[in-house]
Amino acid sequence: MELAPFLTARRQALRQELDRRKLAGAVITDPNHFFYLTGLLPNPNFPSLLVLNDVRAIAVVPQYGVDTSALPAASDPLTVTAYPNLTLADLSRFVDEYAERERAFLTAIHELGLAGRPVGVDALYFPVGLAKAAGFAPEHLHDVGAFLYHQRVIKDAWEQEQLAFAARLNDTGFAAAQAILRPGISDYEAFSAAWRAMAEHLGGAFDLHGEFSGGPAITGQGGCAPVGYTLQAGDLLIADIYPVIRGYQADTTRTFVVGEPAPWQKEWHAVLEEALARGEEAIRPGLPAAELDRIVRGHVERHMPAGGSMFHHAGHGIGIAVGKGAHYPPFIVPHSPDILQEGMVLTLEPGLYVPGKGGMRLEDNYVVTANGCRPLDTFPKTLVVCA
Amino acid sequence: MELAPFLTARRQALRQELDRRKLAGAVITDPNHFFYLTGLLPNPNFPSLLVLNDVRAIAVVPQYGVDTSALPAASDPLTVTAYPNLTLADLSRFVDEYAERERAFLTAIHELGLAGRPVGVDALYFPVGLAKAAGFAPEHLHDVGAFLYHQRVIKDAWEQEQLAFAARLNDTGFAAAQAILRPGISDYEAFSAAWRAMAEHLGGAFDLHGEFSGGPAITGQGGCAPVGYTLQAGDLLIADIYPVIRGYQADTTRTFVVGEPAPWQKEWHAVLEEALARGEEAIRPGLPAAELDRIVRGHVERHMPAGGSMFHHAGHGIGIAVGKGAHYPPFIVPHSPDILQEGMVLTLEPGLYVPGKGGMRLEDNYVVTANGCRPLDTFPKTLVVCA
Repeated sequence: MELAPFLTARRQALRQELDRRKLAGAVITDPNHFFYLTGLLPNPNFPSLLVLNDVRAIAVVPQYGVDTSALPAASDPLTVTAYPNLTLADLSRFVDEYAERERAFLTAIHELGLAGRPVGVDALYFPVGLAKAAGFAPEHLHDVGAFLYHQRVIKDAWEQEQLAFAARLNDTGFAAAQAILRPGISDYEAFSAAWRAMAEHLGGAFDLHGEFSGGPAITGQGGCAPVGYTLQAGDLLIADIYPVIRGYQADTTRTFVVGEPAPWQKEWHAVLEEALARGEEAIRPGLPAAELDRIVRGHVERHMPAGGSMFHHAGHGIGIAVGKGAHYPPFIVPHSPDILQEGMVLTLEPGLYVPGKGGMRLEDNYVVTANGCRPLDTFPKTLVVCA
Repeated sequence: MELAPFLTARRQALRQELDRRKLAGAVITDPNHFFYLTGLLPNPNFPSLLVLNDVRAIAVVPQYGVDTSALPAASDPLTVTAYPNLTLADLSRFVDEYAERERAFLTAIHELGLAGRPVGVDALYFPVGLAKAAGFAPEHLHDVGAFLYHQRVIKDAWEQEQLAFAARLNDTGFAAAQAILRPGISDYEAFSAAWRAMAEHLGGAFDLHGEFSGGPAITGQGGCAPVGYTLQAGDLLIADIYPVIRGYQADTTRTFVVGEPAPWQKEWHAVLEEALARGEEAIRPGLPAAELDRIVRGHVERHMPAGGSMFHHAGHGIGIAVGKGAHYPPFIVPHSPDILQEGMVLTLEPGLYVPGKGGMRLEDNYVVTANGCRPLDTFPKTLVVCA
């Protein structure tokens, strides 16, 4: 699949919005929007930005830290201006990256004829210092961040493919964790084994973000990174992993048991499997997210073990995560205002937790299709037995 | 060591600057400045900000994602306002985190009496959308980002301790890599072994950032993350690691050789050791960074093998890296304008690379003291032999 036509379509959608609002162009600084509109992976240490008018666009990127070698040749021209950003990149003079970036930004503004004209910006990112440098008064600046955010909630075919790839990579991590987990193995070892298998499969290093929390202390509270717990026979371990792969974040969870599962562990997990299956069955355009929450959460709550709870959302949208990331609409919660639409990509994640006894979660990723959904995960949805 | 008095001193320094410039207060949105002034580790997915006037400060943080449990009780009051930010945190209603954050920000502005008054902001971060919401006109907003950046270049004793801790943790990673490296081991395995040992030592998960590039293809060009290369006897591997630990980033490099080193490998590395020793010997307040570059680079260049080069900086300042991070003044490059000052913390990193044959780098971290420097690394500075 070629990215270029999708990039053109995304930029044309933004241009239509600018046109509708009589804006001469746009300046985009949110890394997520930047990546969406350019296909260039931004570098968190050296800001990139996009300047765009009705016919062309200029990406202002650091000379060092952004790979522009494979820039797709879209039919609406996008050119790149690389600003010097590291003293190590040019030893013949001293490089002030802040001044260089501002200079490149102002040049792009003037080249595209946007100086002193009304433009769209992502107002929760565009900094007052750049606005001032370019001579944009507050009345020149109109927020298009919300527009882009909502545009990005519906994934085009290229984005669906990226998310499918990220989800399949998570499956690789689960398989590696299953292969290594046995009594005496620590959560760190399982986590690093998953990382290594995923890096080998991906062909490159990445940050493995997620929970690998095991043992009777499982709470299911978010952000439970591994802590050095050594697994014992009979322990549960929740592995909820959500690395950012080529800019996209899938979010998948499996629960592992070390040794043969106890009957109560099998019963609990069967509840989650059935909740997930009912949710998957229900997904279709037009379904209110709140209703999807009732379907998934309702099943878990009707079969909740004594003292247990499912305190969290039943799922959420996923997508680009090169800046602020993690969760997008649709939010699968009781009072969600969201309605499922074709092209949304979301997780479902039924969970149940009994303080002092243990916790479980099962999470998969789905594309909302015209008639239902397409699951993105292939790893078995059963309790993962590590013997 | 207690953090609280340092936080008070940092905020008082900012208040003196505000007072000098007749500003009523400040709004700080850059995550690095926020962490420096509050001691609270921000969460990249949910923005935090600090609102401060002449007597008190309010940190606006997400309810979920920032640990405020250990907030130091400084003598100038800092209170926390937690804005609801995750639908999963409150299932009784739908949470719009953008609206919640703006509301909490505006409340803080009004509580501290800053509405419609001239304030300091970090102008390269503070977004036009928040300025507009608070009714700040451009003439109300004055940049204090550059002031804070330069303030942060000089590390107080607490920061020096954090950087020393991060540097020692890197040493743990080198020891683990040395223990595992032998022919047939991949760079991924060495990288994940280093991560695991460091996580065990730290007592928590973290992102291991760095290069682990090995074999004859070593170029020394930045960002050489592991790529799946399987090491052979005689191979070199450069491990340049710079994880962010508790908000601080040290940056340390060792070169490993698999099996007994060849004479040329020993000779090359001796050049780097001598260059580093000469640099370390020279560090003192008042020394121009350009002169330090000449000392380190000069030694390498005088002993450069045929066809080789040291194309990069000879070192750089280090510090907080919870937002845009990596490199701070002093920049150790030929045309650097920086002068070493007591309290700066910097790396020296002589390297040499011969295309087609291999490369080496050696990098340590130093605090500039009143009379010289204090090295932060204890791992041997020799070529690391893995037999």
